Order: sequence, then C-alpha cells, then structure tokens
Amino acid sequence: MTEVPLNELEVGDLVRRLHRRDITAVALAEACLAASARVRNTINAHVALDEGKVLSEARALDEMREGGIIAGPLHGIPVAIKDNFWTRDYPTTACSMVLADAPAGIDATLVGRLRNAGAIIFGKTNMHEWAYGATNASSAFGPVHNPWNPDHIAGGSSGGSAAALAARVVPAALGSDTGGSVRIPAAACGVCGLKPTYGRLSRFGVLPLSFSLDVAGPMARSARDLGALLDVLSSEDSRDPTTRVDRRAAARSATTRLAVLRGEGVLCDEDVGHAFETALGVFREAGCIITDVEVPGLERGFGVWKVIMLAEASAWHARYLESHVASYGEDVRVQLQAGQHIAAVDYLKAQQFRTRLVGRFRELLEQHDAVCLPTLPIAAPAFGETDLVVGTRRISAQDAMTVMPWIANVTGLPAVSIPSGRNAAGLPVALTLMGRPFGEETILDIAETFQSVTDWHTLKPGMVA
Amino acid sequence: MTEVPLNELEVGDLVRRLHRRDITAVALAEACLAASARVRNTINAHVALDEGKVLSEARALDEMREGGIIAGPLHGIPVAIKDNFWTRDYPTTACSMVLADAPAGIDATLVGRLRNAGAIIFGKTNMHEWAYGATNASSAFGPVHNPWNPDHIAGGSSGGSAAALAARVVPAALGSDTGGSVRIPAAACGVCGLKPTYGRLSRFGVLPLSFSLDVAGPMARSARDLGALLDVLSSEDSRDPTTRVDRRAAARSATTRLAVLRGEGVLCDEDVGHAFETALGVFREAGCIITDVEVPGLERGFGVWKVIMLAEASAWHARYLESHVASYGEDVRVQLQAGQHIAAVDYLKAQQFRTRLVGRFRELLEQHDAVCLPTLPIAAPAFGETDLVVGTRRISAQDAMTVMPWIANVTGLPAVSIPSGRNAAGLPVALTLMGRPFGEETILDIAETFQSVTDWHTLKPGMVA
Repeated sequence: MTEVPLNELEVGDLVRRLHRRDITAVALAEACLAASARVRNTINAHVALDEGKVLSEARALDEMREGGIIAGPLHGIPVAIKDNFWTRDYPTTACSMVLADAPAGIDATLVGRLRNAGAIIFGKTNMHEWAYGATNASSAFGPVHNPWNPDHIAGGSSGGSAAALAARVVPAALGSDTGGSVRIPAAACGVCGLKPTYGRLSRFGVLPLSFSLDVAGPMARSARDLGALLDVLSSEDSRDPTTRVDRRAAARSATTRLAVLRGEGVLCDEDVGHAFETALGVFREAGCIITDVEVPGLERGFGVWKVIMLAEASAWHARYLESHVASYGEDVRVQLQAGQHIAAVDYLKAQQFRTRLVGRFRELLEQHDAVCLPTLPIAAPAFGETDLVVGTRRISAQDAMTVMPWIANVTGLPAVSIPSGRNAAGLPVALTLMGRPFGEETILDIAETFQSVTDWHTLKPGMVA
Repeated sequence: MTEVPLNELEVGDLVRRLHRRDITAVALAEACLAASARVRNTINAHVALDEGKVLSEARALDEMREGGIIAGPLHGIPVAIKDNFWTRDYPTTACSMVLADAPAGIDATLVGRLRNAGAIIFGKTNMHEWAYGATNASSAFGPVHNPWNPDHIAGGSSGGSAAALAARVVPAALGSDTGGSVRIPAAACGVCGLKPTYGRLSRFGVLPLSFSLDVAGPMARSARDLGALLDVLSSEDSRDPTTRVDRRAAARSATTRLAVLRGEGVLCDEDVGHAFETALGVFREAGCIITDVEVPGLERGFGVWKVIMLAEASAWHARYLESHVASYGEDVRVQLQAGQHIAAVDYLKAQQFRTRLVGRFRELLEQHDAVCLPTLPIAAPAFGETDLVVGTRRISAQDAMTVMPWIANVTGLPAVSIPSGRNAAGLPVALTLMGRPFGEETILDIAETFQSVTDWHTLKPGMVA
C-alpha cells in the first residue's frame, strides 16, 4: 500500500489519498490511535482520547464517502484539540483541577468548523494549566515530555498538541496563543504553528487567558497544511464580536523583502544563531532581499506584555480565585494573585505603549513582506533547567520561551513558526515569520518556499523511527 | 431685510439665505459678533474670539461666492469650537492652567472638515477644565453662566458651546462628550446636542479625557441642523484609528417604536417628569408606539462608567500630573489622583459589565427604533446648589448631570438631546433619544418629527429678546 505509515503523512497528502480512496479514514484513524498508544506513557500528549468515538466517526465518514458525500476539505483527517477548546464529546478542563469536574458541553466555533469540514476530533491534548505558562511543566495531568528527548520540556502552553504532532500521533491540531503558546511548543517539538492575526479566528468556546492577546491557531507539520487548516477555520463569528474579516493586507511584492529583527530584545544561543543565519542564506538563495532592522523600544515590550496578561488573566479568574483558590497549581495561582495588584493606569499605559509598537511594526511592514527572527533563543531545555544563560543574560525557562514570541501578540500580527535546524544535542530549533494584519497567506507562502528547499520540517524524533 | 436678527436663525435657514444672496457672510458674522459682545460678561461662553479673523474669513467667503465658488454646504456659517479641539488660529487650553501657555497648532480633523465645508471658525468656547466635570463651574477662565438665568450653571463640560447657542451668538458649535458633555449643557441651556456613535467622528486633535468613552459631537438649535453638521463631520480618518464607517444600522420601521426607559437608574423631579410625559403624548399623537422597558443591572452602570473614566483619565494625565500638579483645579486634580488607585482588575471588570450592557441595549434596539428618557433629572441648578434632592435621592450637582447621560457613552450608542419643556422657574428641560450603532439619522428623524409639531427648541432666553 504505502511505505510511510499513514500517521506520518501530512494533511495535504492524506486528503489526496483519502479522496482517491487509496486509504480509508478508519485505516488512518487506526494508525493514529496505534501511534498514540505507543507514546502515551512517554510524552503524555493527550488528556482525553476515546478510541471508540474516533473509530465510529471514521467509519461514518468512510460510509459518507462511499455514498458520494464529502463533508468538506478535511473529510477523514484526525485533528487533536487543546483542552481549552469546548468540545461536545469531551470535558474541557484547561488541565486545571479547578475544572476537574467540568462536563462536556458544546463545541467551540473552531471545533464545529473542523467537524463541518469532515475532520475527526482526535481527543483533547495536554496543556500548561489555564494556558498560563510556556513550559508545560505544570498541568493537572502531569507535564508534557518532548518527543525528541523526554527529559526535555515540550514547551507550552499548547504542548500536548505539539508533542502529538511531533510524535506522528496526528497530522493536525488546534492550539491557542497569548504570548507564543502555539509557536513555542511547535518550535520546541520541531513542528509548525500559526498564530493568526488578532480577530481572524473565532474564540467562542475557547477558555480565555488574556482577551486582548489571545488567539486560536492551527498546528501541523508543514506551512502548506497550516494554510489548509486556516482556510477551514477562518470566519466572522457573531458569537465572538472580536472576529473580523479584513482582506486589505497588501499582496506580497514581486521580490520578497524580509526584515530581520536585530538588536535589544532579540537573543539566541550559538546553535540557534547558527541555524538562523543558515536559514537566512536559504532565503537569500531563493531570491529574497534580506535587511537587518531594529525596532526602538522593543525591549520594553516584554514587560508591557506581562502587565497586560497579568491584569486581564486576574480579571477573568477573579471568581474562581475566590471559590477555588486551592485548586490552582502553585505557579498559576501566584501569577493570578500578583495580577490583582496591577494598577489600572499601568495597564492603560501598557496599552498605550502597545499602540505605539503597532505603529512601528506597521511602518516596518510597509517596507517589507515579513519580519523574521528566531522563534526561541534556545532549543527546549531539560526539566529542572529552570535558570538558563543565553549569551550574557540569565533568564528563567519561562522567560526564555516567551522573550520573543510576545511580539506577535502585543502587535496582533500573524506569525508562523517553522523548524529551521537542530542544535548540537539534536533538538529542533525554529524561526518565525511575522506578517501584515490579515496577511497570513503571505507568511505561509514564504514559509512554504523555505520548506520546498529544506527538509527540517520532515525530520522526526528518534522514538518515531 | 429680515425680521428675525440673523444671529437667531438656524443653520438650514442661513444656508438658504446665503445661497440666495439675501444675506452675506459678513452681515451674519457681524450679527454674531454683536450678540457675543452683548452677552460676553454675563455668560462667559467664549475664551477666545478674534473679531478680525472672523470678519476676514467672512469677507473671503463672500468674495468666493461672488466669484461663483462654494467651499461646501456650510459656506459662511459661523461655528464655535470647544476649547479642547486643536485649532490652527487659536491656542487650545482645555480651560486648564496646565496648558495656559499652549500655542496655536494644527486643526483637529473635525475643525478642518468644517473649514473645508466653508464654515467660519467662530472662536473657542469655555468648558469644564479638561472636560472632567459636568457643571462648568470649574474653568481656568471662570464658570459659564446659563443664558436663561445667569445665577444657574450652564452644565458641562461643553458649557460655552451650549451657552453661545442659547444666547444666539452662533447657530452651530462643536462639543465633546464622555459622559454627557454635549447633551448635558444642551439640555441645561435649551439647545440640541448629538453624541454620535463611538467611532463615527474623528477625535484626532481633540484632547482626550477617557479614550473608550470620548466622542465629539455637533450642537445646534434644531435636530435638522445637527443632521447637516453630522453630514459634514462624518468620515473615516487615518489619523484616528478608532473611526469606523458602518452603515448596517437597520432602517426606521414604518411605525416608529419608542422604548421608554423606566425603573432603577432613571430619575427625575416633578417638572421634568411632567414635561417628559407630555412629550411622550406628542410622540403618541404623531403615531409612535410607546413601550415602557427596564434594563436589568442599569443602576450598576453609573459606577462602572466612573471607574472606566477615572482610570483612563488618570492614565492619560499621568505625565502632566507629575509635571504640573499645582496647575490643575482642585476638583479635577482630586479625581485624577483618585483614578491612580483603581486596580486593573476592577477596570477590566467594568469593561466586562460594559460588554453585557451593550448586549442588553442591542436586544432592546432590535425591537425598538429608539430608547427615550429624560436627559437630566432636573433643570440647571443654581451655582452653589451642589447637593440636590431628586425624589427620595440626595445627589450632588455633578452626579445629577451625569446620572443618565453616561448610558450612551458606556454603550457607545448615539444619543440626541432636545428641549422638551420648561420647569416652574422657566428653565429648559430636555429629553434624549438613543439609537442603534451608526443609526444617528433615525434618532434625528424622530427628533425632527417632535420639533415639527412643538416649539420648545425655538424658545430663547429672556436676555436675547
């Protein structure tokens, strides 16, 4: 039949094979379930997965196809869902004991759109508790382990979705991103993640962390697959008044102009730096014009991002903090309590800074098609490596994960992270392309160009081989 | 030539006469300047007015017309500008000693639009310091006095614009409105004021008070004139990213359905109540369907409005408070200092309440064309009457002015205030019509219907007669 196991194929390839009836949705689902069983105890990516439901959905979709009915562009594709998206068939806990007894409810808009497109909801994935952390070391279901080396973190907060992709359990997944939570674990696990423009995808039914920063985003193993998922997920949604449809993003110029972000606020270790410069060489060879740029004041933004998130998270959690304070994990509770002491004037000054930063990136993106920078300054650290040194800076693992990804959340701009190499220990490293508001298609195009001439995104962890 | 002095005519009438060359812009400007001189010391409406500039603009416009050139629909109409709008020919002080040495700069977008339409900028009007108060008793230029009785306040913060209109100094004026600052002085002085939908008019060049509540708005002596001014002022503005063009407001239904707001949060004294019920009778006779409605939770909103304004005003003023604390008036400084102690979580909870209230009014306006209520619970109080009794409630003059107008700012909805009667002391009282987002035309239509069968808006203070 096929040499590569079905669970290792990309969405685009699977869609073609399913369409040609070379394979069935049941065969694909079985391969994914088997892969899940093999790595379950090692990586801890799923917190809920009902084999019976998955197989019966797959059977129903195969029968539909037999009858000539195609639900949509993802007919038969398994998609794993981060556990902060409401699902009608699984409880939604945000991996917190606060919601330990939550019942299943209704589908989040994006989950419903996936179902309507024919996707199989492939269980709920582990995450940093309440999405309030970037390591995925804290979860009511235990930490997520990195498929490339289970002694290392998977990154977070969408760590289960990234680990499931890297371990070839699913070809696609949903994550959410407040300061990098889609892109951080994607980078740490060697897969691809898209943080769309603020307002592009509905957040109805996604448990919030920080409403002015939160976005939902697709995760997959190629930029092309991210584009296919984005097409299915995009829509205005009357149930989320922050959704917008805006097609005014300028088209990509004839020659792609990449702005490389340098200076204060951009940092990386030697291996990440080397992989990044090599990747820039690839872009240059592909005909891109590369220009180094700096954004004044950028280094202040990391603190501004924290102030906004602290205040908004504490406001949303106010009632649970009163009723369930003992049910929170230590790190999440401390942050929520700290956020109660942010002054409104400081929050509003942070939002003012944000407006200025948006203006600076708008100017930058008038001159360039995308802004390029390393996703993370380091590869995934080991569990217990909580204090790191990057260059001359001492930095916590949490801060090392978010020190650059926050930029796309504070500015609201779309950003895609793709694998761009491996460090000396063999762990994946990644680069990020940030684009114009509602210009996802352009940065995905540029990422596809890179992936058409490199194979970093196709490498898989040793445990899969 | 004409029986009624030119300065007493409405914009629409003046435009026609100017167009027919029955009158000249110079004659009109001279009449307005003379009216200003007559009441200057009594009402203190203007803080800057350059006769020479006014007359030379009028002469230039007359010459243009002689040459067959019409600048726009307001060619030759004098418009007074609240002193928190930037103007290229007058300093802009927000009536605060903090800006006592401010030079003239560039025009606010709305001032520029008036000029482009042929209006004559008729000086700068007095206002409550920094727009941070509703009585206009506090101003670096001294209080504004009510043309109907100079022992009474004019209301604020756009008190100078309203007093100038009531005293027949100008036929049109600009104001700004954060919790009623256009509608309160309009009601207190017996003229008309429109608070447009949040985002309808540009705020570029308007000194802010509270960015999520502030709107600029036209003031005049009839609803029809407000519509003419709105047409000239409306536009998207790249210099104000909060401006929006949205024409989705549903059309007025064949039979006008008015929802009358009752219950907690709506209060008025006997005279205002009597005038209001009489006005409802007029609407009923005009064929409107009148339904009493209540909005649950409305009474909480007054405090929510204050929290939002306190926090946002203190954030904007943070730097001036450091550098110029002694230059603020006592009442404004105390509020700005108090606002520094609002917690971000309380600010954000206030914004959450706001979202729910917006939803309730959206539902209400699906069933009705407008929401109707008294603008103020009382007619303008006397200076020194700082503690009032309305029904069973003791209330400060400041709170009595804002206790209902805040609703349109917190919900972002358009609202027009028009005179609806007089109290036992002969002072004007007013009613408000609130409409759908971007549905200004509907509420102005309804107001015009009222004004076509009543003459409250044509009455003038004794000092004019």
